[in-house]
Amino acid sequence: MWTLEVKTSTREELKDITSQVQSLVKQEQLQEGVLLLYSPHTTCGITINEGADPAVARDIIQSLKKLIPLHWDYAHLEGNSDAHLKTSLIGPSQLIILEQGQIKLGTWQRIFLAEFDGPRNRKVWIKLLK
Amino acid sequence: MWTLEVKTSTREELKDITSQVQSLVKQEQLQEGVLLLYSPHTTCGITINEGADPAVARDIIQSLKKLIPLHWDYAHLEGNSDAHLKTSLIGPSQLIILEQGQIKLGTWQRIFLAEFDGPRNRKVWIKLLK
Amino acid sequence: MWTLEVKTSTREELKDITSQVQSLVKQEQLQEGVLLLYSPHTTCGITINEGADPAVARDIIQSLKKLIPLHWDYAHLEGNSDAHLKTSLIGPSQLIILEQGQIKLGTWQRIFLAEFDGPRNRKVWIKLLK
Repeated sequence: MWTLEVKTSTREELKDITSQVQSLVKQEQLQEGVLLLYSPHTTCGITINEGADPAVARDIIQSLKKLIPLHWDYAHLEGNSDAHLKTSLIGPSQLIILEQGQIKLGTWQRIFLAEFDGPRNRKVWIKLLK
Repeated sequence: MWTLEVKTSTREELKDITSQVQSLVKQEQLQEGVLLLYSPHTTCGITINEGADPAVARDIIQSLKKLIPLHWDYAHLEGNSDAHLKTSLIGPSQLIILEQGQIKLGTWQRIFLAEFDGPRNRKVWIKLLK
Repeated sequence: MWTLEVKTSTREELKDITSQVQSLVKQEQLQEGVLLLYSPHTTCGITINEGADPAVARDIIQSLKKLIPLHWDYAHLEGNSDAHLKTSLIGPSQLIILEQGQIKLGTWQRIFLAEFDGPRNRKVWIKLLK
């Protein structure tokens, strides 16, 4: 198992981690299988979406803010219940196919850490499945 | 890795692909493991839900339209920001258990490609995990 | 493949199943790999989120109720269309890393069956991936 270190810079953002994943694959000379990318946190998840136009990531973050308000009569007193729900909706992990030493994404796909309660130093656990 | 070709016929629909997955399993004589079904697109995902009453799939599509409007002050100019968000919420992939040459679903479960920006010709990448 | 039996006690709740998963790992002496936890149902899913403060789980359930009302002009006549949509949003399965005979969760993470149409007796299928 490997760990990526990801630093986010604002409360809510989609942080593109594709290059970090590719660097790990190269460095560890991983060849074939499926990569599990897993967030061990409860207020950030992992998602896959378009990276060509950064407006897509911003729209995703802004629309989630409209759907799930920061203040909404929550019982949890830490002020981040919105972040917990968003994390369960986006999901804590994603799977990526690996072939001939390359991760296989669709033309427009990039891998993002979905930060909902930053800025923080986050970790992504990575495991290779055969 | 194998690729399914899936043709959708409207902008938003849950397209049942269970039979296509079963045909592939039979044709390739796959026996045991877990199948990863992965969408390489950024405006359609994969989900598992009830297939017996088609009203369930329609309710899922209609409710998502109410939650995430087509026009909602988006920054991305292609007019499909709603589809990108829905894809991240539904997720780009699903896992299905395979035993004795049969995919193992719950009594009411069917596998759907969740189209949010069709009609299009879509692909689903399939990989067998042991 | 193994099956956990999970009994829920109300219509909508996050039921912590972490101890049940840990018991299975111990009993079956599972050591290394990734566990797939899969719900064969169409009105409950699996999620991972904070378990330390039970208010987080309650906020997730309550917020989902606000987002996706029980009555919302649905076509499906069984009165549980909200539960079907919530299940597709949360997802039917999760993956957990297993190392040295222990499941590896983040500090605050617990595994939950997300019940949206209980109370019921539910099953969770578990498969070990290498």
